Amino acid sequence: MAVAFLLVSFLAGLISIGMAVYFRHLVLKEDPGNEKMVTVAGYIEDGAKAYIKVQYMVLSIFVGALFLVILFLLPSPLAPSERYTVWFNWEQALAYIIGSVGSMLAGYLGLYVGVKANTRAAQACTVGTKAGFNVAFFGGSVMGLAVVGVALIGVSVLYFIFETPLIVLGFSFGASSIALFMKCGGGIFTKTADVGADLVGKAEYDLPEDDPRNPATIADNVGDNVGDIAGMGSDLFDSYVASIVAAMMLAASLALIINIDITIDSTLRATLVVAPVVLCGVGLIASLIGIFIIKYRKAEDPGKALNNGTYYATLIFAGIAALFTWILTLDLNSEGSLLLWRIYFAVLIGLASGIVMGFTSDYFTRDDKKPTRNIANAAKEGHAVVILSGFSYGLLSVVPPTLGIILAMAVSYLLAGVFGVAMAAVGMLAIVGTIVSNDAYGPIVDNARAIAEQGELGDDVIRTADHLDSAGNTAKAITKGFAIGAANLTVFALLFSFAEESGISMVDLLRIEVLIGAFVGVVVPALFSALLVLAVQRNAAKMVDEIRRQFEENPKILTGEEPADFKKTIDIATKGSLRELILPSIISITVPIAIGMIFGVAALGAFLAGAILSGFVFAVFMSNSGGAWDNAKKWIEDGNLGGKGTDVHKASITGDTVGDPFKDTAGPSINTLLVVMSLTASIFMGLLLLFNHGAGLITF
Amino acid sequence: MAVAFLLVSFLAGLISIGMAVYFRHLVLKEDPGNEKMVTVAGYIEDGAKAYIKVQYMVLSIFVGALFLVILFLLPSPLAPSERYTVWFNWEQALAYIIGSVGSMLAGYLGLYVGVKANTRAAQACTVGTKAGFNVAFFGGSVMGLAVVGVALIGVSVLYFIFETPLIVLGFSFGASSIALFMKCGGGIFTKTADVGADLVGKAEYDLPEDDPRNPATIADNVGDNVGDIAGMGSDLFDSYVASIVAAMMLAASLALIINIDITIDSTLRATLVVAPVVLCGVGLIASLIGIFIIKYRKAEDPGKALNNGTYYATLIFAGIAALFTWILTLDLNSEGSLLLWRIYFAVLIGLASGIVMGFTSDYFTRDDKKPTRNIANAAKEGHAVVILSGFSYGLLSVVPPTLGIILAMAVSYLLAGVFGVAMAAVGMLAIVGTIVSNDAYGPIVDNARAIAEQGELGDDVIRTADHLDSAGNTAKAITKGFAIGAANLTVFALLFSFAEESGISMVDLLRIEVLIGAFVGVVVPALFSALLVLAVQRNAAKMVDEIRRQFEENPKILTGEEPADFKKTIDIATKGSLRELILPSIISITVPIAIGMIFGVAALGAFLAGAILSGFVFAVFMSNSGGAWDNAKKWIEDGNLGGKGTDVHKASITGDTVGDPFKDTAGPSINTLLVVMSLTASIFMGLLLLFNHGAGLITF
Repeated sequence: MAVAFLLVSFLAGLISIGMAVYFRHLVLKEDPGNEKMVTVAGYIEDGAKAYIKVQYMVLSIFVGALFLVILFLLPSPLAPSERYTVWFNWEQALAYIIGSVGSMLAGYLGLYVGVKANTRAAQACTVGTKAGFNVAFFGGSVMGLAVVGVALIGVSVLYFIFETPLIVLGFSFGASSIALFMKCGGGIFTKTADVGADLVGKAEYDLPEDDPRNPATIADNVGDNVGDIAGMGSDLFDSYVASIVAAMMLAASLALIINIDITIDSTLRATLVVAPVVLCGVGLIASLIGIFIIKYRKAEDPGKALNNGTYYATLIFAGIAALFTWILTLDLNSEGSLLLWRIYFAVLIGLASGIVMGFTSDYFTRDDKKPTRNIANAAKEGHAVVILSGFSYGLLSVVPPTLGIILAMAVSYLLAGVFGVAMAAVGMLAIVGTIVSNDAYGPIVDNARAIAEQGELGDDVIRTADHLDSAGNTAKAITKGFAIGAANLTVFALLFSFAEESGISMVDLLRIEVLIGAFVGVVVPALFSALLVLAVQRNAAKMVDEIRRQFEENPKILTGEEPADFKKTIDIATKGSLRELILPSIISITVPIAIGMIFGVAALGAFLAGAILSGFVFAVFMSNSGGAWDNAKKWIEDGNLGGKGTDVHKASITGDTVGDPFKDTAGPSINTLLVVMSLTASIFMGLLLLFNHGAGLITF
Repeated sequence: MAVAFLLVSFLAGLISIGMAVYFRHLVLKEDPGNEKMVTVAGYIEDGAKAYIKVQYMVLSIFVGALFLVILFLLPSPLAPSERYTVWFNWEQALAYIIGSVGSMLAGYLGLYVGVKANTRAAQACTVGTKAGFNVAFFGGSVMGLAVVGVALIGVSVLYFIFETPLIVLGFSFGASSIALFMKCGGGIFTKTADVGADLVGKAEYDLPEDDPRNPATIADNVGDNVGDIAGMGSDLFDSYVASIVAAMMLAASLALIINIDITIDSTLRATLVVAPVVLCGVGLIASLIGIFIIKYRKAEDPGKALNNGTYYATLIFAGIAALFTWILTLDLNSEGSLLLWRIYFAVLIGLASGIVMGFTSDYFTRDDKKPTRNIANAAKEGHAVVILSGFSYGLLSVVPPTLGIILAMAVSYLLAGVFGVAMAAVGMLAIVGTIVSNDAYGPIVDNARAIAEQGELGDDVIRTADHLDSAGNTAKAITKGFAIGAANLTVFALLFSFAEESGISMVDLLRIEVLIGAFVGVVVPALFSALLVLAVQRNAAKMVDEIRRQFEENPKILTGEEPADFKKTIDIATKGSLRELILPSIISITVPIAIGMIFGVAALGAFLAGAILSGFVFAVFMSNSGGAWDNAKKWIEDGNLGGKGTDVHKASITGDTVGDPFKDTAGPSINTLLVVMSLTASIFMGLLLLFNHGAGLITF
């Protein structure tokens, strides 16, 4: 009976894809604007496609290799399940391929519409704010709906066919390995272009932002799309699927719910396993309704409209989820029903804490609040002080979301044990359709603003686009806080499901090998952040050399008589981002396996816990300090503290440039790193158990 | 019989104090130089004494309050030991007072000689390098010998009288609470002055470093003494005593040595308990011999001389420690003897890894190695890129010492279980007399250089002083790496002894309250770093305002006709540092107690582990990035990449200024934070066990 509910999610997924296609149609039929705009948009589209082509080619090799590893090196009999009877692991390997391809597809669809929507949104701004908003919002929704639709269809179909979460785990691992490339690669690409363009264009030649004469301007615009649309989309796709899988695996294997005196019979277990999928389907429906409410409401402030969409989706979700919880309880006895209602509240707590986290990160990065205001004022004392100030507030901003996560974990645990924590993560991600839509809106309006400027649509239109853009920045700050919180709860859930799967009864920090595992875990996010920031710094230096070369060899570029060579700069960003990806990706997959093989499965558990905790600190710190520096600069550019061109402004630009790879490369990539490492641990479990029954090569 | 060996340490301590007094005499009888020099040195001395006076006054109140808490709120029957028969805890409270006063005394003695040695070292530079080196080195040795002497006398006498390590724990807690104030307070003071002086003097008025017209110059010199001599001295005092106590407590309560099949009878236990004290006595003797070898060797490169002192001390220690290990085995059976030799090797491994760690941090901060060279080159791309580069290399530099610590932990654990880890920490700190001496040499020659400049001793003498100074900087980099490593191993040992003391059998990360404890633990060092960096930034802004005010109100200061008001700037640094200390100190003591009370003792163990690991990352990252920025700037000032006055140089100054509070305030203070939190957990154990028998107020 319970399995039949998968149909809800499957149908919701189908509707979602249908809506995405419909929104794509709505966007494409809009007027793309004048010739100049179409040309610029064409450059951006070509650049994005060139990047995606190379990226997907490399990814295919990587995915193919991992497919073979999963197929042959992780033979089924090693996995702790009686389902596996054949000697090779074709089910998981197949699911892995489907997950990878699904993630690539969703990313491509979102990106494809994103690069079409930007010029159309710019043109719509000539009509008015609401018109411009609509085009950008529906363009962004394509990404959001595609992501959720593909994920839900994949999960529900795979579970329906194979009836074990271990196969869905393969799907999730596929989504994650793509996300790692898309997020880190996109992040390196976008900041290579952005930092390079700023360092030469703004600082040396005094060109304004988005000036078409700057050879890196198009690369910068491409970067917004590949980093913020495709990257963030695949990141949330990855967290979304992982949260579902973690909850399903826990439901399937959990011997008991701690703190609650209940026997888990087969009916209850079947219900618990499908519950995360069903609730996510409900969340998707809620997101869809939210999107339509925004569509049919009359004009309002774009920032408010985005936030209202989130609130509507949340409230609607709470209502429909209650209905479905009630339906699910119809099959169960009173004990089971009570448990399901406890789970319902765990889900709501997860969702509520996600929203609170989003708004906390907004507080720390808003220019009308104390932290960003103080950072802006620190710019008066020069470059160094603005850095020190942003650094400190970034670290301070870790405290409130930490308390939020701890509260969510504690309460959801009290409600339904570790399964409650997993369901809180599912709840946090239930309305991810809305979240991704809001996030993808950002780069579209950012690009629209650039195109309006380059298409010479006049000051009024640019001001309208600016207005839309600033709403996009707020949405982005909230989304990032949300994404970090969701990933964090998800990896906690994965840690618990990993422990269940491995059969270890404890991860005792007083054991030396466990302590060593935790030590390495705490260090890895720091190392990973360092590598990504260094990658951006190194690539940006190459970009700087190229921009200088173009200006020196062809003075007509600066006068605007001849176009700059955009392809060359896009090429540098593309190749650089792929090259710099190699080491971080190797680390994320080999280090967990090495720890598990050498020090054993319990040490690997501690490694994951250490990485989750320190990763959370680094992710929040880097995202928020970067966001605050960015907004402090913008606030000064709005004419405060002397405005543009002053020393204060220059110092604030230094802050912003330091913050760029923090907030758009390293910070958000840590989420994906954590999910990939957690899933790697679960996927390779069978292999690890071969070494001394999971105790590792070195015995202490 | 074993207790008689305490005499060795007691006598070594007495000799050490005697030598300190003798070296003080040697330094004081040197020529303090011309009138100008004496005047400047007098300002510095007065400033340092004014700071110390206020600091010690505040400390007395703090120490008094904690004395009463320990005396009345931690009554003896609560502690898990049958030794306690009276209802109040006078023994531990008394030991606490002795530890506090001892730490203050050692700090005062070192500081007193430091501020006398600077001008004498400057004057001796007119004779030659060796003469200048000797004065500075003996001046520094006073601090080193005083620290170790006071510590060893305190530990051996207290253990001799009370025969339980729990009393020595009180002594250690006293030393630590002083260290927290001295290290953080000194760190905030020194960087408030340094950053303030640089921001106005160098950047706005183009004054050179140490220019007497700059009102913050004297405060900056005072800061070197209170931060680097008194602060670092009390920090290592604190780690030193804590490492001895952790090993003693483990020896006293350990039921068995894991991995070794051995019965611990009363003779063996008595030997194990005194072994750490005896080996530290041996280390002190080795340090003394090392100091004398340096004294009587003919002139050599000062940097080499300092390093050679470390090597001599290490080799001599290895030899004498073997002799004493052999003597200690005479009482034991063959099993016990074997164990003692295993411990001997654990000690050597600790010491070796400490030295390796010191040299790793040297690698990451030397201007002739790749990291610092790359950071300097990044300055070509501007302020932001030099920050990104230093940030990344600082994080990367965490990896090698992590591997070093892990290796030391693993091997020492294989040799003798957790007691082996504790003894590795003792080994790392055994030659701390040499380490502190080398470190205290740094600020003395730094001041000497400033005084030589202000006393107009001529270019040759300044060059000589510069030469001595650069050796001091290298020594300082090595000492910092060493101090972090030693503190890290020590707090691991304290964690194990805490677990033994509390009787918890495990710290299971799969339990939600334990995971929450670890979460808070990982976040605290980040919060602590943020607060300290923010403190420096805020105070430096006040300092900047004051310097500007003085220059504007009295133009004769800039022409050199009238002296600046040094007292005012010293006052700002003093008051600011004390005010900003309040929140971090409260956090360091209340958070561990709160975690223990709410979530239980196991969660507190996880809290400590989390804090140790993340604290290590932050401490190494901040110390090394700061050191590398500093040296990159110096390398550019030596005429590379265009040299002084260029944009590259300006960007490198930004790096250095950001690095200042990283490397001299937040980074090194984290060590002390970790030790204080670990000792707080142990000291308040009796109280925590009252709450639900150590399970905490909330039960999951």
